[in-house]
Amino acid sequence: MELSKRALDIQASPIRKLAPYADEAKAKGRRVFHLNIGQPDIETPKEIMDAYNHFDEKVLCYGPSQGLLKYRQNLVRYYEKHNIPLQTDDIIVTTAGSEAIIFALLATCNVGDEIIVPEPFYTNYNGFATIAGVKIRPVTTYAEEGFTLPSNEKIIECITDKTRAILFSNPGNPTGAVYLKSDLERLADIALEYDLYLISDEVYREFVYDGLSHTSILHINGIEDRAIMVDSISKRYSACGARIGCVISRNQVLMQSILKFAQARLCPPTIDQLAANAAVDIQDEYFVNVLQEYDKRRNIVYNEVQQIEGVVCVKPQGAFYIIVKLPIEDAEDFAIWMLEKFSEDDQTVMFAPAEGFYATPGLGRNEVRLAYILNEKSLKRAMFLFRKGLQEFMNKNLS
Amino acid sequence: MELSKRALDIQASPIRKLAPYADEAKAKGRRVFHLNIGQPDIETPKEIMDAYNHFDEKVLCYGPSQGLLKYRQNLVRYYEKHNIPLQTDDIIVTTAGSEAIIFALLATCNVGDEIIVPEPFYTNYNGFATIAGVKIRPVTTYAEEGFTLPSNEKIIECITDKTRAILFSNPGNPTGAVYLKSDLERLADIALEYDLYLISDEVYREFVYDGLSHTSILHINGIEDRAIMVDSISKRYSACGARIGCVISRNQVLMQSILKFAQARLCPPTIDQLAANAAVDIQDEYFVNVLQEYDKRRNIVYNEVQQIEGVVCVKPQGAFYIIVKLPIEDAEDFAIWMLEKFSEDDQTVMFAPAEGFYATPGLGRNEVRLAYILNEKSLKRAMFLFRKGLQEFMNKNLS
Repeated sequence: MELSKRALDIQASPIRKLAPYADEAKAKGRRVFHLNIGQPDIETPKEIMDAYNHFDEKVLCYGPSQGLLKYRQNLVRYYEKHNIPLQTDDIIVTTAGSEAIIFALLATCNVGDEIIVPEPFYTNYNGFATIAGVKIRPVTTYAEEGFTLPSNEKIIECITDKTRAILFSNPGNPTGAVYLKSDLERLADIALEYDLYLISDEVYREFVYDGLSHTSILHINGIEDRAIMVDSISKRYSACGARIGCVISRNQVLMQSILKFAQARLCPPTIDQLAANAAVDIQDEYFVNVLQEYDKRRNIVYNEVQQIEGVVCVKPQGAFYIIVKLPIEDAEDFAIWMLEKFSEDDQTVMFAPAEGFYATPGLGRNEVRLAYILNEKSLKRAMFLFRKGLQEFMNKNLS
Repeated sequence: MELSKRALDIQASPIRKLAPYADEAKAKGRRVFHLNIGQPDIETPKEIMDAYNHFDEKVLCYGPSQGLLKYRQNLVRYYEKHNIPLQTDDIIVTTAGSEAIIFALLATCNVGDEIIVPEPFYTNYNGFATIAGVKIRPVTTYAEEGFTLPSNEKIIECITDKTRAILFSNPGNPTGAVYLKSDLERLADIALEYDLYLISDEVYREFVYDGLSHTSILHINGIEDRAIMVDSISKRYSACGARIGCVISRNQVLMQSILKFAQARLCPPTIDQLAANAAVDIQDEYFVNVLQEYDKRRNIVYNEVQQIEGVVCVKPQGAFYIIVKLPIEDAEDFAIWMLEKFSEDDQTVMFAPAEGFYATPGLGRNEVRLAYILNEKSLKRAMFLFRKGLQEFMNKNLS
């Protein structure tokens, strides 16, 4: 039986494709430190767990397609705290950020249309684009420049008569780059001039370091009709398994259309929404502590990376990822070698080769993404193994 | 800002579009009996609620994209009980049946391809088809014939060079029709001759009356490469809010492709999967009791409907819906009138006009779908109101 073209086209997860090598390493009895995925080890707040543990309705019912009203009302309060005034109807709750992006693409782009995405980017954007029948046109950002937003010129070069939107994550996965207000204003100018939507994936909003404050696309004036924000509780509350996100826009015509896509799939999971709702009132202190913890980890990874001769790495200011350009040819070879051949005291480390985060063929081959989602002790050990492994890998290739 | 063509095309839920009228009726202080949606009032089993209430992991993590291994293993046991032998890799857990159908369409159809669907059909198939860029070609079934599967000739008439699959629900929503083994064998013959996939939505598997036993598409031999089954726990365990379903096929190439779509959205909700997993071992006795309850309701509705002069309604043998052809012109007018104008003791009843379940323009205008999801007492009262309202509506139109 023939499969569809998109079934043949859709990218297998490059983050997950090394999993069999990790499984094999573990089968040999090795401990694998995972720096390859964005699954935080931070405990999920008690408020969330309590919502699951105390659910006592008799029937586990459908909720409304746009999400539970009380949760949307509470989200309005949450965003108010971030100086983003909203109406409840500006928000549709989704099954994680993934569905939010798919809805945004379906509602704004025709099949065959294009979106511009700064690369390296979150690999699943490829899958969402395939699902929506949309082509990604990458605009390259560079390790040497800390993956900052490219010049207007470079972005405008990518615009064709099929371009409908610019999609980006801020803070960036996999780069950790944080766009400044002036960056977003530049994007807004371009969007206004070329009649584009701006789809801003802000699931790492709280993860911003060095005293920076995060600017949302919804903070920018004059683009109310074209600004779409995507959010999720996965990282914010270390609740990746809840699959609760949302899509937000002040363009009510757009939101009414997204609601129709949402109606087709009936509703997001009900109890998980109640859990997300319970999290809205978590004290700021929680984030202060979480942020301190991640900042410590960021410094560990960054400082370790700086010890390696020949690396390129500007210290990232957001999210919990760092991309490192290594003095080797092929980071995937290195990653596989680490899992297959390397071990010290029966331990090794897994990380994501960065090539899969680029759409331009050949880019990122000598880069890796490290997710600093382990506790201090494990992270130090993992980074020691990473450096030691890299040295051995390079020596082997020289000899 | 322009929206996409599909955003303009996608059907607003015809089931939900009467909601504002119901809200208004309630605002006037009226009690509305809901026969319009498939939200069962049966209590969700304790096993499921316990899984939520006893979850005690520290971190609410992502699960695997194909679903939790232990749940998939337990699903293999569940299907074994239904004489459907499977491997765990034949199953991918989805965010409800909705996502399962979307994945099946994405993997089997190109944009612009067609699928054949017996009408009247579950309205959200329209939304899934829009999302996948696929055209639905309806093959009409008739109230007079109990909505049985059309002749081979009628089905084959709908096949074009773009047809990739036949999608159907069995037992049928909104019809309650149950396809016999011989029906599925006819579909299999057509699928083999014209190289089509068969996508069988079996979320009402357990809801089959009159001592009939349900035949799954996976019971039919010789179509292992083209049979795709869609399932969900929503109706089975009265757990609509859990949003846990699955897509199943023995075509491993197809399943590997669906897995890539699944990887893009990372995973279905984790705790809800644990809840679904806890349900696998619910005793058969549970279903016996549930079935008896629904059978009683089916008889109440059917018997009440038979009292109405001029109706067409063959007693349905599955699901918990019944379509009734009424001796009026426009069932939507009637439905709105019931909510706006009719009341007895401040009570009225809401049901779904059936036109929205047909893709062929003009069909079903004098039909309604009644969901028998209320307890005996409420259902009797609702049906009394339905009959009384219909009589008044008809008298009004005559005068």
